[in-house]
Amino acid sequence: MNHLAAFNLNADDLLMQALKEDITNEDITTNAIMREKCRGRVQLVCKENGVMAGIHIFKRVFELLDSTTEMDVFFHDGDTVGSGDVLAIVTADVHALLSGERTALNYLQRMSGIATHTKSISDALKGSKTKLLDTRKTTPNMRIFEKYAVKVGGGYNHRFNLSDGVLIKDNHINAAGGVKVAIERAKEYVPFVRKIEVEAESLEMVRQALEAGADIIMLDNMDTDTMKRAVEMIDGRAETECSGNITGDRIDEIVGIGIDYISCGALTHSSFILDLSLKNLEVI
Amino acid sequence: MNHLAAFNLNADDLLMQALKEDITNEDITTNAIMREKCRGRVQLVCKENGVMAGIHIFKRVFELLDSTTEMDVFFHDGDTVGSGDVLAIVTADVHALLSGERTALNYLQRMSGIATHTKSISDALKGSKTKLLDTRKTTPNMRIFEKYAVKVGGGYNHRFNLSDGVLIKDNHINAAGGVKVAIERAKEYVPFVRKIEVEAESLEMVRQALEAGADIIMLDNMDTDTMKRAVEMIDGRAETECSGNITGDRIDEIVGIGIDYISCGALTHSSFILDLSLKNLEVI
Amino acid sequence: MNHLAAFNLNADDLLMQALKEDITNEDITTNAIMREKCRGRVQLVCKENGVMAGIHIFKRVFELLDSTTEMDVFFHDGDTVGSGDVLAIVTADVHALLSGERTALNYLQRMSGIATHTKSISDALKGSKTKLLDTRKTTPNMRIFEKYAVKVGGGYNHRFNLSDGVLIKDNHINAAGGVKVAIERAKEYVPFVRKIEVEAESLEMVRQALEAGADIIMLDNMDTDTMKRAVEMIDGRAETECSGNITGDRIDEIVGIGIDYISCGALTHSSFILDLSLKNLEVI
Amino acid sequence: MNHLAAFNLNADDLLMQALKEDITNEDITTNAIMREKCRGRVQLVCKENGVMAGIHIFKRVFELLDSTTEMDVFFHDGDTVGSGDVLAIVTADVHALLSGERTALNYLQRMSGIATHTKSISDALKGSKTKLLDTRKTTPNMRIFEKYAVKVGGGYNHRFNLSDGVLIKDNHINAAGGVKVAIERAKEYVPFVRKIEVEAESLEMVRQALEAGADIIMLDNMDTDTMKRAVEMIDGRAETECSGNITGDRIDEIVGIGIDYISCGALTHSSFILDLSLKNLEVI
Amino acid sequence: MNHLAAFNLNADDLLMQALKEDITNEDITTNAIMREKCRGRVQLVCKENGVMAGIHIFKRVFELLDSTTEMDVFFHDGDTVGSGDVLAIVTADVHALLSGERTALNYLQRMSGIATHTKSISDALKGSKTKLLDTRKTTPNMRIFEKYAVKVGGGYNHRFNLSDGVLIKDNHINAAGGVKVAIERAKEYVPFVRKIEVEAESLEMVRQALEAGADIIMLDNMDTDTMKRAVEMIDGRAETECSGNITGDRIDEIVGIGIDYISCGALTHSSFILDLSLKNLEVI
Amino acid sequence: MNHLAAFNLNADDLLMQALKEDITNEDITTNAIMREKCRGRVQLVCKENGVMAGIHIFKRVFELLDSTTEMDVFFHDGDTVGSGDVLAIVTADVHALLSGERTALNYLQRMSGIATHTKSISDALKGSKTKLLDTRKTTPNMRIFEKYAVKVGGGYNHRFNLSDGVLIKDNHINAAGGVKVAIERAKEYVPFVRKIEVEAESLEMVRQALEAGADIIMLDNMDTDTMKRAVEMIDGRAETECSGNITGDRIDEIVGIGIDYISCGALTHSSFILDLSLKNLEVI
Repeated sequence: MNHLAAFNLNADDLLMQALKEDITNEDITTNAIMREKCRGRVQLVCKENGVMAGIHIFKRVFELLDSTTEMDVFFHDGDTVGSGDVLAIVTADVHALLSGERTALNYLQRMSGIATHTKSISDALKGSKTKLLDTRKTTPNMRIFEKYAVKVGGGYNHRFNLSDGVLIKDNHINAAGGVKVAIERAKEYVPFVRKIEVEAESLEMVRQALEAGADIIMLDNMDTDTMKRAVEMIDGRAETECSGNITGDRIDEIVGIGIDYISCGALTHSSFILDLSLKNLEVI
Repeated sequence: MNHLAAFNLNADDLLMQALKEDITNEDITTNAIMREKCRGRVQLVCKENGVMAGIHIFKRVFELLDSTTEMDVFFHDGDTVGSGDVLAIVTADVHALLSGERTALNYLQRMSGIATHTKSISDALKGSKTKLLDTRKTTPNMRIFEKYAVKVGGGYNHRFNLSDGVLIKDNHINAAGGVKVAIERAKEYVPFVRKIEVEAESLEMVRQALEAGADIIMLDNMDTDTMKRAVEMIDGRAETECSGNITGDRIDEIVGIGIDYISCGALTHSSFILDLSLKNLEVI
Repeated sequence: MNHLAAFNLNADDLLMQALKEDITNEDITTNAIMREKCRGRVQLVCKENGVMAGIHIFKRVFELLDSTTEMDVFFHDGDTVGSGDVLAIVTADVHALLSGERTALNYLQRMSGIATHTKSISDALKGSKTKLLDTRKTTPNMRIFEKYAVKVGGGYNHRFNLSDGVLIKDNHINAAGGVKVAIERAKEYVPFVRKIEVEAESLEMVRQALEAGADIIMLDNMDTDTMKRAVEMIDGRAETECSGNITGDRIDEIVGIGIDYISCGALTHSSFILDLSLKNLEVI
Repeated sequence: MNHLAAFNLNADDLLMQALKEDITNEDITTNAIMREKCRGRVQLVCKENGVMAGIHIFKRVFELLDSTTEMDVFFHDGDTVGSGDVLAIVTADVHALLSGERTALNYLQRMSGIATHTKSISDALKGSKTKLLDTRKTTPNMRIFEKYAVKVGGGYNHRFNLSDGVLIKDNHINAAGGVKVAIERAKEYVPFVRKIEVEAESLEMVRQALEAGADIIMLDNMDTDTMKRAVEMIDGRAETECSGNITGDRIDEIVGIGIDYISCGALTHSSFILDLSLKNLEVI
Repeated sequence: MNHLAAFNLNADDLLMQALKEDITNEDITTNAIMREKCRGRVQLVCKENGVMAGIHIFKRVFELLDSTTEMDVFFHDGDTVGSGDVLAIVTADVHALLSGERTALNYLQRMSGIATHTKSISDALKGSKTKLLDTRKTTPNMRIFEKYAVKVGGGYNHRFNLSDGVLIKDNHINAAGGVKVAIERAKEYVPFVRKIEVEAESLEMVRQALEAGADIIMLDNMDTDTMKRAVEMIDGRAETECSGNITGDRIDEIVGIGIDYISCGALTHSSFILDLSLKNLEVI
Repeated sequence: MNHLAAFNLNADDLLMQALKEDITNEDITTNAIMREKCRGRVQLVCKENGVMAGIHIFKRVFELLDSTTEMDVFFHDGDTVGSGDVLAIVTADVHALLSGERTALNYLQRMSGIATHTKSISDALKGSKTKLLDTRKTTPNMRIFEKYAVKVGGGYNHRFNLSDGVLIKDNHINAAGGVKVAIERAKEYVPFVRKIEVEAESLEMVRQALEAGADIIMLDNMDTDTMKRAVEMIDGRAETECSGNITGDRIDEIVGIGIDYISCGALTHSSFILDLSLKNLEVI
């Protein structure tokens, strides 16, 4: 999991920035009520059923406010959690608990919401060879958190950004003057460790992509029948991905076709949060 | 609107950071396909009905990649837009258009989604004195964009963060030893330009808050009848806000009570995006 | 006090930046003289009478250079200190002590100077209902430190910045076309948790501000008699603030009028520092 | 002057940071009153006699908010200005004028205050060979502005920071075990382009510093007679600097001795600001 | 080329930082000599034969100091340049020219040195199918510039960093307990757009890597004969890369084997710079 | 040494940035292979003879990934190391070891390469009064590391940057209209703690520089005979430096002349790295 060694490297700056977004000077309410440092503990309580993701981020927010923060964890990322469950108990300076609460929850709730949404779809793919992918339709400055949450929910990550993956779309093809020349230019230009993915909107484009040696062919907004014929034409010579508003109903059809990947932007751009809250704070 | 003078001051850093999240080195696909600079234009097309918000952010993303970006705008923030509408035409270096597309849309789609969601609720409040408020349950590092979108959708902003507003919650009250002492401490500590808001879960707490001189009383998770009695007790001596999963059905009841404000976290934490895309790119 | 949980969040970046301003590469004098790490202690000595403010900032500067820094504190923020008093003893790596000395003192001396200045005026207001306020006339990038020092000296903070408080000045009124319309626009636009303050230069403007429902009226550069009539006219319907070079002599008059607040820019823009130094460094 | 080519390199970050300190989200008052962009102009008016310093910084603040800012300047840095003088007229978007006003003035007033203070002392040294120096007792994160203001006021800059100059103080001497060994270590360690300055509190220390080949000897807190004998002993073999609360009265005595430099921390740590304001804003 | 749209996005921060490394306050020599702004031009002169790379970076350094910088370019990236050639003429404020000279040259000389070194090896591979690769052995905070220079010199880029490419080395294999399990874990974990590369030190490891379905096999420190047998065993089922101090003499042997890629760390870690200088500055 | 107190102040930001350059999201290979935290140790092995420099930087890279990193050091900066020597053993989380390896080595190898190169020349100067200097021809954003490595190798540092040293070159002299006026302007403008260095290309320019009171005269590209006459003319009235492609052969001649300093850009711009690697990683 990417909470290992290098994680804070990239996450800490974003978490600090989020804390500063919420505290530009001081937490005036908390500081007004409690004038001195004192240690306290608080429960993280689940208020609806779902899948938890991001508990290390949640903890890290408090650590950035109080390095002596401790947390007892009763559930782990990927676990199914239910309304009423106490997920963790955080112990820290009371000011850190109160000042960090909203930011820590904003991360955890959103990440858990994405994991919950992802799980509901990835479960439907179980038993098939088809895997669920995310996209780059993430919330700005949230990508490392949201793509992690997709993995927790049983999904797989597509490319992380424009620098580390090739995806030739219709506009690129037009600009290049055809599928073949576009793929050739990509093969010449991009680091050899990259696979070349091409978006195809018709069987003819699939054929050209195959000829030019694409590694992955994305079947874009095809109806189920066309998609089936495309997969037959490709016949294992490239990996296949389909995208474009794949609703629950069509998933079974698509799985039946033997497509390798379904990508779904809604995982990250249109999930509900998972309702969680901090309860029963007590000074110790 | 906050796209005026000082806006770039705070927005630019976040937009740059989002662009760097998506482009850590270069856009290898676009640079592979098009080796030289050339100017192009592309249409921003609406794919479902809603309310647009954030068109200046959308443009700013491209400007940060190419300072000569121009945009013809056919709709403005707050306008109702429909599926098929061309909202704007952006003209810039083709590389800027292709490399900035996803980031620009990620902002605009999310902001428009929030405005659309907000509008659907704020419209229901029209004709009454009750106003719709957002909360601090925003996506980390998206607050200035999300709170702006709420305003575009006809909502009003609650406090921006922990430094610029006072909201005494149950935990604060416990820590202080009562509503009265908590309010007194706040009045003594916080800058006099701040109003003092207190969360009340019972009529008794409402009574104490009134006595201690709270400026705003938040009626937290009360049933409609209790809320009604609370408003009568307050009788204009403090502003009133209610929160806690106010679903569409209860809105009419609450409006009837004459509450001043309804706050709704879902506006920012659980809106769907508005589906938009860039189409018909052409080199010019 | 705002040295609680969230303090380092905002202060650390500024302190680091100040250290880097003073050490762009290394402290060549100290490193030349002492080639190896060794622990030492040094006294913080007071050289004139005043009020101390910022001892936690002072310590934090050394901690940022040496995380094992320890400090014995003999006086606390707000205490009156006298020439010759040893205020604290700092123990750390000698290099940290010597390299951090100037930056730590630059903060502590300036903050203590402001607290001392503030105390001299706030003491004159004791026994009255009138309170002393600071302004936004702070040294750039020093606001959180300077506003804190004002509180330590017995003053109160006005709004922190342009985002978290409303103050309608003459230019705003001109632009809007009158006091009334300006206040109406503010009430419509700004978050409801904000109070609306208006600057009034005449009794007529006071009258209009009252009618439009201003929360606070600032009596700007009025003579004592006019100010008295303004306070009578307002009669508790708004809070009152006066500003404009309130010298020591006029304070008694103004207090007699029953004004709520006196704001004073000189607290932060024209205070002398309090003379302090580090003495008797010894290697241990 | 350091407003040349490289200036923005270091100043812009600090100015942006100061603007963000004052505008964490938006200028709610100005944006409430004026909803649309419009161009305006405003006068920079002087309210007391002094020396102006920092007019380019003043302008730069507005430019950072509105790149189309224009300024007509009627006085230049170093000019004597009088109460009532219009120093400049700034033309820009009205929102930029109102939102940037306080930050621009906070810089200009402080810098002009330092220049005014410096001028009053440097004028007293005119006709002599003795020059006035600043110190590192500057306000944190203001050094480039404050040291520039000292030059504008006719003073000279001492070392900029701990990395670019050597000053061996009593604590260094103690740690090294003597003046001679301290100087030797410095000569061995520090880049050869640096001069070696030593603080001497007695004639014996002056003698040792001379023998060890110090480039500059600072006569620290000596009475006038001892200082005279020190200068005679040095006899041009090193430059001489004196420091330590040199009040106006002693300046004549010290000048008579023929000391090369007088350093004065108060120039930067205890100057009053120069009173300036923005007046007569008009929409154009 | 990556000087297109998104380039400044990542380069500008690094260039600004390099300028600040060289100018912490002001360029005191230049500012001393020339007190007023004036425009000038200077020639970029080549002093030894080689390949130019980075001319846009060179120009950008001056633009960051003076946005009105203009440059006439007589050679382009990838061109062979000779001693005495005038490569470009830069026109800008003289202060910008003098203050930016060293930083601009430090980039251009290093990048051109790398391109020259790369060209000398890539030329030796011409006519064969074997391509020359760089590595991650770049100078810290110089990677985007150094990898670009490799491309200019006719080399190809390997993965950009640890996030965007998989390379399983001996330590990973040990930790996993074998080649096969290591590859399986990678296939399960890493985004599907990534190829899986494995380092093999023996024919047995090559066999296992093939079986487990590695996309690329790096033949590490093998003698030519073993490498030959490895390529035969692989037989096109994976791409092949060899590394490990490939000196000029062995290149012909390796090319004969039909290896796909040779990677060479020295391109970026041990190239000499190309000698260039700014000459004949004149004020205009 | 500058790894003392203030070192991390400036180094940490650069090291973090270098780590982020290599890890934009996560180390996918390592995280794929090892899913849980576990502690390990690894040897730092030397693969060719040279001088080690930067072992504290090497360690610091791992500490920034894992604050519990420990290191047993068997050699120190400045020590001669030989092929096969184990220089240190690092113990930390295995993920930190694997993810930080390349960045840590990139620093240490480059710094050691510079120290090795420097040592080879500074050894040739032993027994003479002539010292070896570095220049500002450093790799961008590597200056503090490269200049430190020069010192470790027995060299001395010239000025650190354009703000802390004066060096009047031919272009400055032309612009000023002569050596004398250039030196006068510098003496008037620059802080008095700075020495004035002038570049002289002829004996006539040496004479003028002497007359105008230059502190250091750089003899630029002179033949040995002219250099000899210049040193005789200067006769100890200024320090002497020579530069301009001083190859090994000429060093003896120049030393014989009695020049004070030889500056050599190649130390930092054209050194080979020292070959080092991490070996024998084991989980503990």
